[in-house]
Amino acid sequence: MSWNRKHLLDIQSLTADEIVTVLDTARAFKAVGERAIKKVPALRGKTVVNLFVEPSTRTRISFELAAQRLTADVINFNSEASSLKKGETLKDTARNLEALNADIIVMRHSASGAPHFLARFLRASVVNAGDGAHEHPTQALLDAFTVREKKGRIAGLNVTILGDILYSRVARSNIWAYTKLGANVTLCGPATLVPKVFEQMGCRVTYNVEEAIAGADIINLLRIQHERQRKTMFPSIGEYASLFGLTQARLARAKPEALIMHPGPINRGVEIDSQIADSGRSMILDQVTNGLAVRMAVLFLINGGKGPQEVAA
Amino acid sequence: MSWNRKHLLDIQSLTADEIVTVLDTARAFKAVGERAIKKVPALRGKTVVNLFVEPSTRTRISFELAAQRLTADVINFNSEASSLKKGETLKDTARNLEALNADIIVMRHSASGAPHFLARFLRASVVNAGDGAHEHPTQALLDAFTVREKKGRIAGLNVTILGDILYSRVARSNIWAYTKLGANVTLCGPATLVPKVFEQMGCRVTYNVEEAIAGADIINLLRIQHERQRKTMFPSIGEYASLFGLTQARLARAKPEALIMHPGPINRGVEIDSQIADSGRSMILDQVTNGLAVRMAVLFLINGGKGPQEVAA
Amino acid sequence: MSWNRKHLLDIQSLTADEIVTVLDTARAFKAVGERAIKKVPALRGKTVVNLFVEPSTRTRISFELAAQRLTADVINFNSEASSLKKGETLKDTARNLEALNADIIVMRHSASGAPHFLARFLRASVVNAGDGAHEHPTQALLDAFTVREKKGRIAGLNVTILGDILYSRVARSNIWAYTKLGANVTLCGPATLVPKVFEQMGCRVTYNVEEAIAGADIINLLRIQHERQRKTMFPSIGEYASLFGLTQARLARAKPEALIMHPGPINRGVEIDSQIADSGRSMILDQVTNGLAVRMAVLFLINGGKGPQEVAA
Repeated sequence: MSWNRKHLLDIQSLTADEIVTVLDTARAFKAVGERAIKKVPALRGKTVVNLFVEPSTRTRISFELAAQRLTADVINFNSEASSLKKGETLKDTARNLEALNADIIVMRHSASGAPHFLARFLRASVVNAGDGAHEHPTQALLDAFTVREKKGRIAGLNVTILGDILYSRVARSNIWAYTKLGANVTLCGPATLVPKVFEQMGCRVTYNVEEAIAGADIINLLRIQHERQRKTMFPSIGEYASLFGLTQARLARAKPEALIMHPGPINRGVEIDSQIADSGRSMILDQVTNGLAVRMAVLFLINGGKGPQEVAA
Repeated sequence: MSWNRKHLLDIQSLTADEIVTVLDTARAFKAVGERAIKKVPALRGKTVVNLFVEPSTRTRISFELAAQRLTADVINFNSEASSLKKGETLKDTARNLEALNADIIVMRHSASGAPHFLARFLRASVVNAGDGAHEHPTQALLDAFTVREKKGRIAGLNVTILGDILYSRVARSNIWAYTKLGANVTLCGPATLVPKVFEQMGCRVTYNVEEAIAGADIINLLRIQHERQRKTMFPSIGEYASLFGLTQARLARAKPEALIMHPGPINRGVEIDSQIADSGRSMILDQVTNGLAVRMAVLFLINGGKGPQEVAA
Repeated sequence: MSWNRKHLLDIQSLTADEIVTVLDTARAFKAVGERAIKKVPALRGKTVVNLFVEPSTRTRISFELAAQRLTADVINFNSEASSLKKGETLKDTARNLEALNADIIVMRHSASGAPHFLARFLRASVVNAGDGAHEHPTQALLDAFTVREKKGRIAGLNVTILGDILYSRVARSNIWAYTKLGANVTLCGPATLVPKVFEQMGCRVTYNVEEAIAGADIINLLRIQHERQRKTMFPSIGEYASLFGLTQARLARAKPEALIMHPGPINRGVEIDSQIADSGRSMILDQVTNGLAVRMAVLFLINGGKGPQEVAA
């Protein structure tokens, strides 16, 4: 299966085969990250612009390094001191960046659909690095990569996603990726934040954390974003930790070889016990390493790469 | 004609031949931006410092990309968290940057003449990226490049510059460049912002926008900088839009093939009708693309390049 | 003597031979900075992360350029908009950066010992770029480099360090480096800021500035950090300038060929007379140039370089 898309906007519109092509390509790039010289010339002379209208150090750095390791030129567009602050429209800003012969625009924005909007009129490729509460496709791809690498497969696994599902773009992208690849997905969290309507995406919804974890192969925690929570829909941090935090006792209900995942940064003692976070079952740092490989693969593919067979050995 | 200057500080001191040398060199570099690998090794191992004491995302990114495409190393000096905030003099800051073996310092500063001041004592080359209300030479060069590319010539064209002339460094540089290259320049805007004294630069001054536009080949709009306007000299935004904004009705008075230029970011509905900005007559995005080529040419020339004949094919 | 350390955390734990190895390696890299192409491929495909939790433009730029000239990929981690602000622990942040296959983490932090803490659990190399009031080893190395370059030796020289010793990480690192290399070190400053206990580091302590300067080969000034001084321990700026500022009259007591050093940025008229700062005896800009060479040497050595013999001619 060879890749033919110009943009990566979401997981929803990808086929299972396309997802697998990204994962296979990422595997080839992961090997690059382990070499003495962690660099390939695949995107030499190409320009990648990080258009992060919503701040993010972690994801921005991962994309920046991915582009550097592909030998692309990278520009970070700082929305704070930018023309956007001077009243320029997003469309005009994006067109201006494209007029600099940008090949790829990696975009994070607080509005759902902003990358799709850009992709409709730009000749440059667009990568969604998180749009509002909609999707965060590279996060779901790196999660799927990590699961497949550790478990050898995704189909048939029991995956529990735990936390604030309603406002989480990570959750939406995860659900699409895991279900397309054949996993059984269970969602759990405070009832206000896990509406039953998610069952229509093919998931099981439960508000009982013990039941959600029972028999899980993968426990995919979501970050509690103190700074964003709406008071009327979210219990206190302490109450969340006590009702939904992953403790040793709760983890004991999962399969013995169950793995723990978290998109980071973690809140120790809130979503996750410190000891579990530091244990061999925690995939948190593997996810970071794999994120770089997945982002190299995405930049490579949307720039015209066809698949893993084209990654230089 | 071969280039022999170490700095680019203003347009005023350039000869017409020198301006043409920059434009010819920029044409060669524009072709680089259209190749699959948008990169030449001309400045490999050279260090370019972006010393932007006044914030600017747009111009800074253009210079940063220009330097990257010439394979230079680039450092962005962030004036916010810098030694300038700790009370260091500008002279000391500049000397410190030079002591890092900087080859070229690209400088934006709110004080007119700051780059000239630096150039007097630095061994490094200095490029003025905008100094107070004085000059913004690369903007005028990219504008001239764009006009010449589209019209085939500049001499004899009717160019109308419309807006706040008095406080605009872009206007001053534009006037010097267009008049040196033989265009007929008309200035128009609110009377408080377009003093008659500009006639001494060889321009016609009028306060009647219809008259200013009549017969124009080029309409060069200036950005209304809400944030900087002095209340006593500037009408309200609404009044400006109604009296001087470029509408279809006003544009109809220009020549049929007249082109619209604007340094960006644009205020839609203020200086310019949205429809005109998006029409085929708008050169706004061409200006951005050409700005990159012009800045590559400037960095190349002040680093010792002689002219377009030296740009590798 | 060949280098065998993975980290550079302080001067205290280095032997004189190790310090000399850094200085010899820096001499080889200084020559690189004087070439037309100021770049060597020594760290190609390596990733250097600047983790500056305490802001610093000057030192950060020096490390960034050093890494670029070694052809490394460099990432600047901006602590302002980062996961550290979201409550992530320093340990988790560092591990996340390492998981991106970072080879070297250059760290500045307001807490003494933070880089040592990191070095205990990271596989990546750690360079201390200043930790609290503890050490700033590359500053001491560049100072030693400058003295040796100008004087031909360090052993037997009279070095006077003048200023706020108590809260200065630069002073601590300087004292270790100068004394290990055989200089006679005198400390001077306000009594509240130069405790007698520093005599145990092998220094002479005096509160009489004329006595401190008499017979000095090197006068190493420290920066008065207005912004950090505790009012109860520091006289006013004016009083400091009058009691301890380096004037022509005071300088006359030093040896005729005495050199003046300052880590910058300088406060003209406070620690130092403007004329002295601009005189041929001031090493301030040499220190900046040498800082780049020293930092290239440090990055090269902790990445596995053995010494100057390995620096490509």
